[in-house]
Amino acid sequence: MTETPPAPLSATPRSTITRKKDRGRTERAALYSLLDEGLVCHLGLLLDGSPVVLPTGYGREGDTLYLHGSTGSPSMRAGDGSTDVCVTVTLLDAIVYARSVNDHSMNYRSAVIHGRPRPVLDPDRKLHGLRVVTDHLAPGSWEHARPVSAKEFAAVTVLELALAEASVKVRDGGPSDTEADVRDGGAWAGVLPLRTSFGPPEPAADLRPGIPVPEHVAGRG
Amino acid sequence: MTETPPAPLSATPRSTITRKKDRGRTERAALYSLLDEGLVCHLGLLLDGSPVVLPTGYGREGDTLYLHGSTGSPSMRAGDGSTDVCVTVTLLDAIVYARSVNDHSMNYRSAVIHGRPRPVLDPDRKLHGLRVVTDHLAPGSWEHARPVSAKEFAAVTVLELALAEASVKVRDGGPSDTEADVRDGGAWAGVLPLRTSFGPPEPAADLRPGIPVPEHVAGRG
Repeated sequence: MTETPPAPLSATPRSTITRKKDRGRTERAALYSLLDEGLVCHLGLLLDGSPVVLPTGYGREGDTLYLHGSTGSPSMRAGDGSTDVCVTVTLLDAIVYARSVNDHSMNYRSAVIHGRPRPVLDPDRKLHGLRVVTDHLAPGSWEHARPVSAKEFAAVTVLELALAEASVKVRDGGPSDTEADVRDGGAWAGVLPLRTSFGPPEPAADLRPGIPVPEHVAGRG
Repeated sequence: MTETPPAPLSATPRSTITRKKDRGRTERAALYSLLDEGLVCHLGLLLDGSPVVLPTGYGREGDTLYLHGSTGSPSMRAGDGSTDVCVTVTLLDAIVYARSVNDHSMNYRSAVIHGRPRPVLDPDRKLHGLRVVTDHLAPGSWEHARPVSAKEFAAVTVLELALAEASVKVRDGGPSDTEADVRDGGAWAGVLPLRTSFGPPEPAADLRPGIPVPEHVAGRG
């Protein structure tokens, strides 16, 4: 059985990288892995004519990004159909030290997604969207924790955004000094990697005695 | 000698927190420390009528945020004076596991700043802004690395944004389950801390032999 590889990211005017084009990635797999590794997106929307950028939880399944929040929260007004939004996920990988101040940089991976999110209204699909978001934030918790009640379900909004118009940008590797700086520069050059890791789980102060840390928490990372 | 404490953050309609108001912070020191700890901001601006959110380097000095980028880059069009921007910095501190799926959350600190950035045109002030941004990204590099040349200086844009209209939101502590869930829930609850750290410095492949890792790199963190 052969699987059809997903279509590459195709650039629209809005998703065309105009600076440092060599950092662009067109493989859809690069978009997927970056979104799956990130924990929070930055959702940009227009509120009363001004851009607002809010950190927001999300989850991805296939070519759909799910966002969720409280019904009535500013970020969920992104789903009223009146405006496009921009969702950006950035992962920082290293500080890049160059021989020259000017060539200092960061290694990073970022995805910028444009589109018009729609609220997921069908109850089964909405519940599924909530699950995707939960599985992203806390894999294993959907099975382990108390399910969402009808009242809680009504108080949450789930938006879906198609991964149709997106760009991915990656900077990696060492510093990119000029040849003259490499030859003549006396400064140290290289990268200082940035690492994100999980510390030891900290049980809630009021946790009932005898409940061990489950594997989906203890084994994370 | 007594210093006048900085004025607290005062809410405008745009910077008034409408959801989870208990997470709001009004001390200006909370804004400062969060901005000083973050490495990248998410800059939201309007381009051709759509919101765009771009990861951007920055630095803070007093009540001024400096942003920088290549002249002509989309993010630097934020400084053309035509539109307000939104700058958001988010630090993730932990995944919060609750007894219920619905009360799962993240511990985070976020700052949302609104305003109209202005390009810094005066050469001395522009150079100073560049230094503030460099000191933020790579403290010590301004003294250690080759200074910015006149040509490089001309090719970069520095914007300044007043920290006048800003809000800070913090979620910390353990899960906030309902009393019934705490009493009856059999699920594990607590937090899984997220840590960001620096790995060992990696010298550039073409680094001249005999240049040791300087203390401002080796001792960072």
